[in-house]
Amino acid sequence: MRAAVMRSGALLVDEVATPVPAAGQVLVETIACGICGSDLHCLRHARRFVEVSRETGLGVFDFDPDRDVVMGHEFSARVLAPGPGVTGWQGGEEIVAFPTIRTPAGVRAVGYSNDYPGGYAQQMVLDEASIRRIPNGLDPRLAALTEPMAVGLHAVNESRLGAGPAAAAGAVVLGCGPVGLAVIASLAHRGAPLVVAAELSPARRELAGRLGAHVVVDPREQPPVEAWRAAGGRGPLVIFEAVGVPGMLDLAMTAAPPASEIVVVGVCMEDDRIRPTVGINKRLSLRFVLGWSPAEFEESLAAIAEGRVDVSPLVTGEVSLDETPAAFAALGDPQGHAKILVRPNGFT
Amino acid sequence: MRAAVMRSGALLVDEVATPVPAAGQVLVETIACGICGSDLHCLRHARRFVEVSRETGLGVFDFDPDRDVVMGHEFSARVLAPGPGVTGWQGGEEIVAFPTIRTPAGVRAVGYSNDYPGGYAQQMVLDEASIRRIPNGLDPRLAALTEPMAVGLHAVNESRLGAGPAAAAGAVVLGCGPVGLAVIASLAHRGAPLVVAAELSPARRELAGRLGAHVVVDPREQPPVEAWRAAGGRGPLVIFEAVGVPGMLDLAMTAAPPASEIVVVGVCMEDDRIRPTVGINKRLSLRFVLGWSPAEFEESLAAIAEGRVDVSPLVTGEVSLDETPAAFAALGDPQGHAKILVRPNGFT
Repeated sequence: MRAAVMRSGALLVDEVATPVPAAGQVLVETIACGICGSDLHCLRHARRFVEVSRETGLGVFDFDPDRDVVMGHEFSARVLAPGPGVTGWQGGEEIVAFPTIRTPAGVRAVGYSNDYPGGYAQQMVLDEASIRRIPNGLDPRLAALTEPMAVGLHAVNESRLGAGPAAAAGAVVLGCGPVGLAVIASLAHRGAPLVVAAELSPARRELAGRLGAHVVVDPREQPPVEAWRAAGGRGPLVIFEAVGVPGMLDLAMTAAPPASEIVVVGVCMEDDRIRPTVGINKRLSLRFVLGWSPAEFEESLAAIAEGRVDVSPLVTGEVSLDETPAAFAALGDPQGHAKILVRPNGFT
Repeated sequence: MRAAVMRSGALLVDEVATPVPAAGQVLVETIACGICGSDLHCLRHARRFVEVSRETGLGVFDFDPDRDVVMGHEFSARVLAPGPGVTGWQGGEEIVAFPTIRTPAGVRAVGYSNDYPGGYAQQMVLDEASIRRIPNGLDPRLAALTEPMAVGLHAVNESRLGAGPAAAAGAVVLGCGPVGLAVIASLAHRGAPLVVAAELSPARRELAGRLGAHVVVDPREQPPVEAWRAAGGRGPLVIFEAVGVPGMLDLAMTAAPPASEIVVVGVCMEDDRIRPTVGINKRLSLRFVLGWSPAEFEESLAAIAEGRVDVSPLVTGEVSLDETPAAFAALGDPQGHAKILVRPNGFT
């Protein structure tokens, strides 16, 4: 089969071995797979990515960066053939899945593994326990956004806004890439009364408004916390940091009102500098979040399928496997892009 | 009156104006005043201290570093004379007080002000609303530890351990200076099942054990989180960072088990470097805490007065005003010291 392969720090399209489903696994053909910011980070910092995963005990993200990796963990697919002992799937079903797979060596990440190619390949093997059928005749291209939208939902659930009574606090979202937009969509879906979004790109600012942000600012023109105050915001705030570059934490801590919570959902691979006295004087909390729970993944799929969250504006491009390396390069300077879908088996 | 004065970045003993109580204020004579780590920081970094206070909206800590400041906010005192309109106090009562005072310009911090000398002076004016009588015939020297012990109580209350069910999580306390020891005492008082303390100084390690730590380690010999695991600790952890020097946050984040909470109670005046990916991969929380509530101050006083927390081992020195500058210098390399009490009016 063909795949976009991470090899020696570069992305190239090549023939790779078609995976064979073991007991409890299902062979699928990929329909669509979103390009995630983590994949951009991983391509640029593969060794660091693996080192930190090992150091922090996240064995699920372990691989040998000197061997091929086929990334892609935001996918929809069609069942081709159930493996030995699998009874729940015949073939032809359209599905999404948690990008994790139980193996004799432990749980591994589909798409961050030398052995389990992700959605930038034409075919994948998936864990039967991880598969969910796409309901309601939902377009599988949009179903591919289940995973990134679940990331936003999880960030909101983990924040104070997820706890209920503090929901009136209001929220500022820094950065309106796919993660920030997913956070905005979840906040809107939850009925957060005042959501302020900040983003440099005009096209992404427009998306933030469409997904439910009440106030959208260019941070070069108006500091987002000022915009929140101008819109009537008072008291502590939840700030979602979804940019993920050095300096953003200090910026968020400096701007935060006292007793605010900063939810760090943007992955910053580099070291970062903070001023602890600012955190102490303002009694701030920093909450680093990652991933989602199975229930959040399922809630995300249901919200998209039932039309409660409209993710269609998020899809700003679709590319073939051959165009995938160029799409990665383009996302280095994302501008108007939100989510680009890779279509390894063509566009039909 | 005489006082230890912060002047041009140095501490020296001099005559200063005796304060005069305004309406709603009470004139007291200081019995004992503990030297706080924040005072050491302030003496070394006065301009930075004020800058960060202003930037973070903590007007209470605002003063002109080019004018005299008499520090000292961990005090006990005896009432000398009530000011105009004060009816609750006659004179002679032994008291402690919140080190804050309402003024026409806003609330100010006694001990971090050009106008309201703190407990390194022979006399102070205090806000009548802030004063609490020392109960149970408690030695006023020990009552002076009400404020620092309240800091530890507040840190525990603000942590997940304060919420109840997570109390079984266990705690690691990094640094056994007065703040770390106050945290340990509160944890022990709350019945935390496994408290591990780490400290370089043998004398402070001994104090940690006396105040209730179950396991006490020299971090050069055994990493504290390893010691916690060796003692049966499992799952997420609450780590109290009470050292307050650059590098401790990264060290705590690196050592923390997944989903742990790091409570930052040690004041680090310098910038610090963290690795956000470690926080994200482990889903950590950083909680910066400051101060205490009036209820926590009162609970701290009651716990000391009723003998539920024995603070007497914490008092490792008592000095006169003339000896105060030398005591500050000695605390730069604290070794065996925990709390040194200044006795501005002598030792009787």
